[in-house]
Amino acid sequence: MNAPRDTGPCFYCPELPAEGDAGSLDDEEARHASASRRIRAGDSIGLIDGRGTRARAVVDAVTRRSLSFTVHERWRVPPPSPAIVVATAVPKGERFRTLIDMLSQLGAAAIVPLVCEHSTVKPRSSSVARWRRIAIEACKQSRNPHVPEIVEPSSLADSLARVGAGDALIYADAAGGRLEDCLGAGARLHLYVGPEGGFSDGEKQRLAGCGARPVGFGGNVLRVETAAVAGVVLGLLSGGAGTQ
Amino acid sequence: MNAPRDTGPCFYCPELPAEGDAGSLDDEEARHASASRRIRAGDSIGLIDGRGTRARAVVDAVTRRSLSFTVHERWRVPPPSPAIVVATAVPKGERFRTLIDMLSQLGAAAIVPLVCEHSTVKPRSSSVARWRRIAIEACKQSRNPHVPEIVEPSSLADSLARVGAGDALIYADAAGGRLEDCLGAGARLHLYVGPEGGFSDGEKQRLAGCGARPVGFGGNVLRVETAAVAGVVLGLLSGGAGTQ
Repeated sequence: MNAPRDTGPCFYCPELPAEGDAGSLDDEEARHASASRRIRAGDSIGLIDGRGTRARAVVDAVTRRSLSFTVHERWRVPPPSPAIVVATAVPKGERFRTLIDMLSQLGAAAIVPLVCEHSTVKPRSSSVARWRRIAIEACKQSRNPHVPEIVEPSSLADSLARVGAGDALIYADAAGGRLEDCLGAGARLHLYVGPEGGFSDGEKQRLAGCGARPVGFGGNVLRVETAAVAGVVLGLLSGGAGTQ
Repeated sequence: MNAPRDTGPCFYCPELPAEGDAGSLDDEEARHASASRRIRAGDSIGLIDGRGTRARAVVDAVTRRSLSFTVHERWRVPPPSPAIVVATAVPKGERFRTLIDMLSQLGAAAIVPLVCEHSTVKPRSSSVARWRRIAIEACKQSRNPHVPEIVEPSSLADSLARVGAGDALIYADAAGGRLEDCLGAGARLHLYVGPEGGFSDGEKQRLAGCGARPVGFGGNVLRVETAAVAGVVLGLLSGGAGTQ
């Protein structure tokens, strides 16, 4: 569990000092802390480093562009199990922001923007920095110190080449089975979600050729982001999950 | 299952004619069909009535403001089990739209906008019509003929007064147990989700007094809409659910 030992707003600090040591937020975080969150000297804040460590700190000094603190306590949070990599077609507009936001709160390990045959939105490398920022903001909000990796936009073939030998591999498909039946002993689960038009027959063959199993999420046609969220919820929070 | 016997875009038609009979869409749906979806005479369309019936129809005539069709096939879709009523604090801005959208795709039975002590957004009756429209649009998209009821904004006491004697009753709480352990034989599950500041101690006492059990969704602090979606996914799609 991610015990609530810290109070106050939570900030992102990729280089967390040791207990008792002083540190500072980078410019952007400091501006956010002083202007939006109205943090003042003496306030207690939470910190995450993005790689599994949380801390409780007290603010020593704050200006409009800088914030220094002393770490009073820091602790590791175990990563969610299984590690879920969501390789997903990119939905339009704000809906990919929603996907990244919710998956970051829930504890996905990585998000791969997928280029599919029926994709209407082509993900660009130039968007990755913005998507990473969305993931960090969501993790601050939810005090999740494991910021999901936002991978460069990938083809189906390239992303499948990164799947490990013992990993579980599934894809969202209306005619598929239950996700829980596909959770093996593997520590890593790869969930593939196609665009609104679905994966092409060739893409499904490629997925099946790599051992991927189709998984359904009820009888309705889910939007990309809803299917991705449902998969992560079931993978991390349902009866068969998270018990390793 | 919600079998894909219809093809083409799906529209909302609350008064669905019998098989072989002719019907028409209301003005707004007809405008949407002709202008946005470019439906023409002879096209095949799907229809939902919002109360569990779907149909496949063929368009007879279409103008900018009217669309008439003949129903070729209609069928009932069983309602999701259990019926999930989500009584939730209203998050800010677009996030309540996301909540209604996803819960409608997934198959929630009803959404109750809740007025809580720590609420920052006070839901208004004047918004209900707009929220219902969002639910209908999401159901069209996902071909879910069971449009969730959007209830008038309610106090915690008023909403609890509508809980039936045999219904399961839970509320989202970081310190809570697993949702699956709270699913009884009841055909109806009421999920309460508090605002970002959480339910007050008094509200938790009131919930507990009605037999509500706290349910957690992993170790992270989830936003209102993410907790609501996680609850519906687990209630409808996880191992212990949907098997009645």
